[in-house]
Amino acid sequence: MSTCLLCLVLLFFSVVAEATYSPGGFHHLSSLRQKKKTSKSKPELPFETRYFPQNLDHFSFTPESYKVFHQKYLINCRFWRKGGPIFVYTGNEGDIDWFASNTGFMSDIAPKFRALLVFIEHRFYGESTPIGKKSHKSAETLGYLNSQQALADFAILIRSLKQNLSSEASPVVVFGGSYGGMLAAWFRLKYPHIAIGALASSSPILHFDKIVPLTSFYDAVSQDFKDASINCFKVIKKSWEELDAVTNKKNGLQELSKKFRTCKGLHSIYSASNWLSGAFVYTAMVNYPTAANFMAPLPGYPVEQMCKIVDGFPRGSSNLDRAFAAASLYYNYSGSEKCFEMEQQTDDHGLDGWQYQACTEMVMPMSCSNQSMLPPYENDYEAFEEQCMSRYGVKPRPHWITTEFGGMRIETVLKRFGSNIIFSNGLQDPWSRGG
Amino acid sequence: MSTCLLCLVLLFFSVVAEATYSPGGFHHLSSLRQKKKTSKSKPELPFETRYFPQNLDHFSFTPESYKVFHQKYLINCRFWRKGGPIFVYTGNEGDIDWFASNTGFMSDIAPKFRALLVFIEHRFYGESTPIGKKSHKSAETLGYLNSQQALADFAILIRSLKQNLSSEASPVVVFGGSYGGMLAAWFRLKYPHIAIGALASSSPILHFDKIVPLTSFYDAVSQDFKDASINCFKVIKKSWEELDAVTNKKNGLQELSKKFRTCKGLHSIYSASNWLSGAFVYTAMVNYPTAANFMAPLPGYPVEQMCKIVDGFPRGSSNLDRAFAAASLYYNYSGSEKCFEMEQQTDDHGLDGWQYQACTEMVMPMSCSNQSMLPPYENDYEAFEEQCMSRYGVKPRPHWITTEFGGMRIETVLKRFGSNIIFSNGLQDPWSRGG
Repeated sequence: MSTCLLCLVLLFFSVVAEATYSPGGFHHLSSLRQKKKTSKSKPELPFETRYFPQNLDHFSFTPESYKVFHQKYLINCRFWRKGGPIFVYTGNEGDIDWFASNTGFMSDIAPKFRALLVFIEHRFYGESTPIGKKSHKSAETLGYLNSQQALADFAILIRSLKQNLSSEASPVVVFGGSYGGMLAAWFRLKYPHIAIGALASSSPILHFDKIVPLTSFYDAVSQDFKDASINCFKVIKKSWEELDAVTNKKNGLQELSKKFRTCKGLHSIYSASNWLSGAFVYTAMVNYPTAANFMAPLPGYPVEQMCKIVDGFPRGSSNLDRAFAAASLYYNYSGSEKCFEMEQQTDDHGLDGWQYQACTEMVMPMSCSNQSMLPPYENDYEAFEEQCMSRYGVKPRPHWITTEFGGMRIETVLKRFGSNIIFSNGLQDPWSRGG
Repeated sequence: MSTCLLCLVLLFFSVVAEATYSPGGFHHLSSLRQKKKTSKSKPELPFETRYFPQNLDHFSFTPESYKVFHQKYLINCRFWRKGGPIFVYTGNEGDIDWFASNTGFMSDIAPKFRALLVFIEHRFYGESTPIGKKSHKSAETLGYLNSQQALADFAILIRSLKQNLSSEASPVVVFGGSYGGMLAAWFRLKYPHIAIGALASSSPILHFDKIVPLTSFYDAVSQDFKDASINCFKVIKKSWEELDAVTNKKNGLQELSKKFRTCKGLHSIYSASNWLSGAFVYTAMVNYPTAANFMAPLPGYPVEQMCKIVDGFPRGSSNLDRAFAAASLYYNYSGSEKCFEMEQQTDDHGLDGWQYQACTEMVMPMSCSNQSMLPPYENDYEAFEEQCMSRYGVKPRPHWITTEFGGMRIETVLKRFGSNIIFSNGLQDPWSRGG
């Protein structure tokens, strides 16, 4: 499985959290291009596709709430025998087929446990949209895209499925990675009568409401590169001012387009900066061993590979050239890309949906300090709030997730109350500091 | 504290559950009259009244969801010292002042624990209505009256209160009786990071989705009377056919009005039947020792007192006369009532709100068997559903409460997961079989 395939769930998650949170900052649109390429890959196991009717709103009884949409889910009974466990993937922001193809861990252990495999798509992603493509246009409808509604969808579907299978005593274990991992952990916390356990991989449930320092994510990315090579860290850190210098020259953007082998001429330095920093962020996220590997093991240590390229340049080479060569490894692992798309626009629903979630409940503030390897930026909450209002007409509720699901002093709470939740985090995974 | 005062929380709860569930069946409107009389009684402790802004909908981000209403709560700091525990009453269907006046247990133990006392009003009851009296007229607005929204209100308010008191480490314990007891138990289950414990008194969380037999409530009422006196049980059981016989006579309703000392002439046998059966049901609910006593201890054994009246009649007296005399004890404990209102109409929001809840999520099906002391009736779910549709334009979601909060095999779930929840149930309390 390629690096790109593996990392997409995290990519996707990170990209838009950053994109939304840092206005004018990171916009790694390139990840979407990759997503499009890979999202049609076939699942390893043949899954039966089914659709389940769900109410638009489980937490009110307004006329609108009774509107029904059809939630897609995938099921495989090959290993299951009646009464055996049910392994459920709590789908996150994207087509469920993609998650089914890339969560090898569940298929790997299913034969041993004789488990039924079920992958449930998250509402408002993939095919599970209440009013088709229009679902993302209407503020009224989009309002029902959130984690609590998604958890209730899972609960209702699982309960109905067990009833239809006449296997109501089957234990249910939920699995998920990244945002899907948060959902799995929260599902076990909120619906202990439905799931007896959860495996939450790389799920940064402490990245809310300033529980962990705002800089922790980018500090961890930087640490991964420092661990691989101090020189590599320094080169990348210095490359940003060279990027500025090139761009500020007369015809600078033209020169940069050439240097970066873009398919079309660049219109702004931001696209190049985002493209470059994205390569390092995502590579850190899939660097072995990260917990995300439970989804699809990586063969190597891509941060080390990148740093070998950086360090291998002849003495006196420009930092920017080295950084670009390292980033090319990520965007062009196969060597088949003739040029790079850095300003491609897209209306992918997955991205749009996640940005909406980041503007409402999934408010994960971040900043990037001067000590980090990446271009520093301050957390500007007001600008973020304004952006959300102008784009979706919503005001974020930054304390809601920690009120609804907890987070503060979580060890104490879980010790007293929770059980059977595994939070798996590779320590090199930048999300791990909030996991 | 009088019997009537004590029982109102349960009365109220039961009245409307029955009223909604058994169309044309029980309508103990008299309880409302009593409520009006008693709801203005002064709290024993002086409480400060405050108001807290809440979003109309916590589980969506539609434009409507951002509407703000002001939730009333009462607070008393007399016994509290900073860092000490916070005792919260999770308000149920009615004015919060009434619950504050009638939950003596919390004030009794507050000095010992140096606890802060907080009573939070349930949304859509008392003064906590989103758009005043109109709140109950609009299906769009009324849709946000439900238990999950109420729990989220509590969570947000408690968190904010602790922050404002600079006492974020204060342990929170939630208390509630009847529906408020369900809310307390569910709050501990869903928000373990906010409340470390719950005392749920007389809260029939198993009365949903046929977890306990449909007849269990009225069977328990009957058992209480049987335990007091077999003769008493038999007399009351036989009184219904005598009630029928009187009514079927020419000018029967007139005769019945006279016999029952109604303030106005009766228009239907149902009012009399409901009035009569109500007296027995509510008396069983407050019969010592029931768990409801944690709210306001009763001095005696009112079922026994009723049965003494029934058994004390001279031989050959009519069963109906005896039953009426027993019921009069309940409705006229003080002896000051000159006549009885049996058909009084009211637009009390509390009742209306609860009936709406019973038509949406709080679907607690019941039936009354031939073995019971009360007029038998079958559970007619279709009629109930039609009634809800015609009255509120809503379709009940009868499986939702057990999906959201559990209920099936609850002991196993709580053993593995929950902790610090006390379900207190007096075994003579008819709700105890579902508690």
